[in-house]
Amino acid sequence: MPQRAVVLLSGGIDSSTTLAVALQQGFETYALTVDYGQRHRRELECAGRIARHLGASRHTTVRVDLRAIGGSALTDAIPVPLDRSDAEIAHGIPITYVPARNTVLLSLALGHAEVVGAFDLFIGANAIDYSGYPDCRPEYLAQFERLANLATKAAVEGRGTFRVHAPLLRLTKAEIVRRGAELGVDFSLTLSCYNPDDTGRACGRCDSCRLRLKGFAEAGLRDPAAYVTQ
Amino acid sequence: MPQRAVVLLSGGIDSSTTLAVALQQGFETYALTVDYGQRHRRELECAGRIARHLGASRHTTVRVDLRAIGGSALTDAIPVPLDRSDAEIAHGIPITYVPARNTVLLSLALGHAEVVGAFDLFIGANAIDYSGYPDCRPEYLAQFERLANLATKAAVEGRGTFRVHAPLLRLTKAEIVRRGAELGVDFSLTLSCYNPDDTGRACGRCDSCRLRLKGFAEAGLRDPAAYVTQ
Repeated sequence: MPQRAVVLLSGGIDSSTTLAVALQQGFETYALTVDYGQRHRRELECAGRIARHLGASRHTTVRVDLRAIGGSALTDAIPVPLDRSDAEIAHGIPITYVPARNTVLLSLALGHAEVVGAFDLFIGANAIDYSGYPDCRPEYLAQFERLANLATKAAVEGRGTFRVHAPLLRLTKAEIVRRGAELGVDFSLTLSCYNPDDTGRACGRCDSCRLRLKGFAEAGLRDPAAYVTQ
Repeated sequence: MPQRAVVLLSGGIDSSTTLAVALQQGFETYALTVDYGQRHRRELECAGRIARHLGASRHTTVRVDLRAIGGSALTDAIPVPLDRSDAEIAHGIPITYVPARNTVLLSLALGHAEVVGAFDLFIGANAIDYSGYPDCRPEYLAQFERLANLATKAAVEGRGTFRVHAPLLRLTKAEIVRRGAELGVDFSLTLSCYNPDDTGRACGRCDSCRLRLKGFAEAGLRDPAAYVTQ
């Protein structure tokens, strides 16, 4: 019987590729999408389509209203920065940082894993392109794994050992795009933009779009997503 | 200027006493109530009244729908066990265990702390009466503290060091009741019951009521809460 894994799935290219990796590794996958009141709600719709397309066993959405605790351009009315250079994107922690985001996401994945009997958590964290996010670093993820093994009934009762998998951790965006393409991810279903228009087209100008477009360009592949400016 | 603390406040006697301790220690307190779809929704109303009564600077409620990930009598339609003996309550992990609950609560407290500029997190965790909950143990809380200091922009940028305070960790329920009473907590505002009736009266029979009543009895104090059977 295949082992179960909970895969955090936002609907962007990183988490979609992560789901494809988990499936390729033979896991029975429980995709978990966290609706944290982000602006880019279309990502949530994308997540459901991607889960079906790739063949996740189940897709669950859990809502947590991070707007109530404030603090990020992704959930507040702070403007998303546009047209920043690669150097600006790479430097420091962006204002699109959501406080404690990966800790919240992983804790929900952990709770879900405990309920479905999974011990493997997959997250599309990346330490290269998002080096400014403290909760995308390997030492952070290793620490969460230790926490998971202290936090839960399942681990304490010796039924298993939790593992946090971040298969994209050390890949560049170009490598992620190539990996996803190899694994058959239909990137036309994904949305990465922080700032899409009403019809769901990506802006092409926010940090996330710029990293994505650069990734496809460097991978020598065409991005099938719809953009406002193309 | 007083330091800020985020205090997790459910509306029961433990978290209310914890808030009183944080205030007594001189913190400017930001009370955070997490509405995780629990049955005992009256606790949420109690939390607001207690925050005002004790003098928290702010009270915020954040909703996270743990029902979506399932798994506990507190959020599902599983019956709450009644009339269990002290030995039964003390033995093993109860079915009212909410998967990864304290990890979710602390991660939300951490995000809120980062937004309001706090480095101190207070939680009413107790390792004596709730020995069956893995995420109430001191080693778990110490691990979360380490995680917090890796997870956040505020800590990584060296603006402070997170501390997780669990001032009730090693107190019996009787000691908690006495401590709360000394600090002026009006226990008539609190609700501990897993299973209150429509008018908000406690059942007196669930594990939480039994521990509470035993605590008041051992402290030699009268519980001012309203009970169905008295």
